[in-house]
Amino acid sequence: MKKAIILLSGGLDSTTVLKIAQNSGYEAYALSFAYGQRHKIELSFAKKIAKKYKVKEHKIAKIDLRIFGGSALTSDIAVPKDFAEKQNLTDKIAKIPVTYVPARNTIFLSYALAYAEVVGASDIFIGVNAIDYSGYPDCRPQFIDTFEKLASVATAASTENRTKFKIHAPLIKMSKKEIIATGLKLGIDYADTYSCYDPIIKGRKVVVCKKCDSCQLRKAGFAELGLKEDI
Amino acid sequence: MKKAIILLSGGLDSTTVLKIAQNSGYEAYALSFAYGQRHKIELSFAKKIAKKYKVKEHKIAKIDLRIFGGSALTSDIAVPKDFAEKQNLTDKIAKIPVTYVPARNTIFLSYALAYAEVVGASDIFIGVNAIDYSGYPDCRPQFIDTFEKLASVATAASTENRTKFKIHAPLIKMSKKEIIATGLKLGIDYADTYSCYDPIIKGRKVVVCKKCDSCQLRKAGFAELGLKEDI
Repeated sequence: MKKAIILLSGGLDSTTVLKIAQNSGYEAYALSFAYGQRHKIELSFAKKIAKKYKVKEHKIAKIDLRIFGGSALTSDIAVPKDFAEKQNLTDKIAKIPVTYVPARNTIFLSYALAYAEVVGASDIFIGVNAIDYSGYPDCRPQFIDTFEKLASVATAASTENRTKFKIHAPLIKMSKKEIIATGLKLGIDYADTYSCYDPIIKGRKVVVCKKCDSCQLRKAGFAELGLKEDI
Repeated sequence: MKKAIILLSGGLDSTTVLKIAQNSGYEAYALSFAYGQRHKIELSFAKKIAKKYKVKEHKIAKIDLRIFGGSALTSDIAVPKDFAEKQNLTDKIAKIPVTYVPARNTIFLSYALAYAEVVGASDIFIGVNAIDYSGYPDCRPQFIDTFEKLASVATAASTENRTKFKIHAPLIKMSKKEIIATGLKLGIDYADTYSCYDPIIKGRKVVVCKKCDSCQLRKAGFAELGLKEDI
């Protein structure tokens, strides 16, 4: 079986990507990050999903993006609410929100590249999405294509022509509705996944805020399919 | 003053780069990594150098490359000795040694990009060297040029046309001799710097091995200038 690295956050998108990769015949090596995110509860979802979907290996890299700050997700800047709702969700030139984490996907893909090189994988899957993703620059096709070019000159594996790296971003042009429809066909139970940027912990229960971009995009995606989640 | 991020390991090369950047009028923001390297003593050298040369800010990012392994510098693979000595030191197609750390410079530059974006810097300095550097793929001009292209599409700063990122690799085509000669002219005391991949700690004293690639390239560089270090 061909090996692939899957960036797995524990969210709706990356879980769908995991199933897409496995359904295409790849043996999955999942990679998650403890990066000082506010919503680190997502890591426990990533662990459960990795186990449930029987990945070959699951690594959690501890990295500290808090040392730089500059984002609502890694510092004390407030997570904005009802931002996406006020916008056209498919507006590709939406203002970049404060939940943008500087160079995050560049850092994540760099780690994935290291992991790929070590296990001998040529394929890396990432759940970025250029349509619904609130205008993050590192979720666009141009970014993914350029990272693939970088991978081809950055490693021993590529330099010695052992490996031609491919960055797969199967969701990049899908709407949230299409992503959810794809995942449901592949048998995903989205109750296992987690999307909120700003959860509230009540005792042992994690309550999603329902107001951040991520919650709202998720809700709208299900609504467009005539579905409603009980969360 | 224009701000620049300087990747500072505490070694001979990165210290020279710091002085080159400062001498070119940049205000220096130094960035070092605790990455599970065997030779983490180099971090204490980085701290001293950052202080001595009055950088504006010095961040040490804790990242764990040990979780992937795959290198003599981050795992229990033995550091090879007398490797460079047996080779033509300027042989650009030298076999990639086991001290190569998968995707290390990709990861380092990704962090530098995040840091640059947060402090509002457009310039990143890195002390890679394509000639003496034992054939590491991520020390070549092609790698640096491609990372610069990636930076131009990866960040909010570049997307909004606020910043055109430039990756400076002033040592890339220099021999070790030329690097040392440059640094000496800029007033560097190289006794403050540290290069060994496999040091021995004897009580409070750090003893360099004198046998690894890095020790040997350093020694040869001084020798070509008719100098000998008392280390």
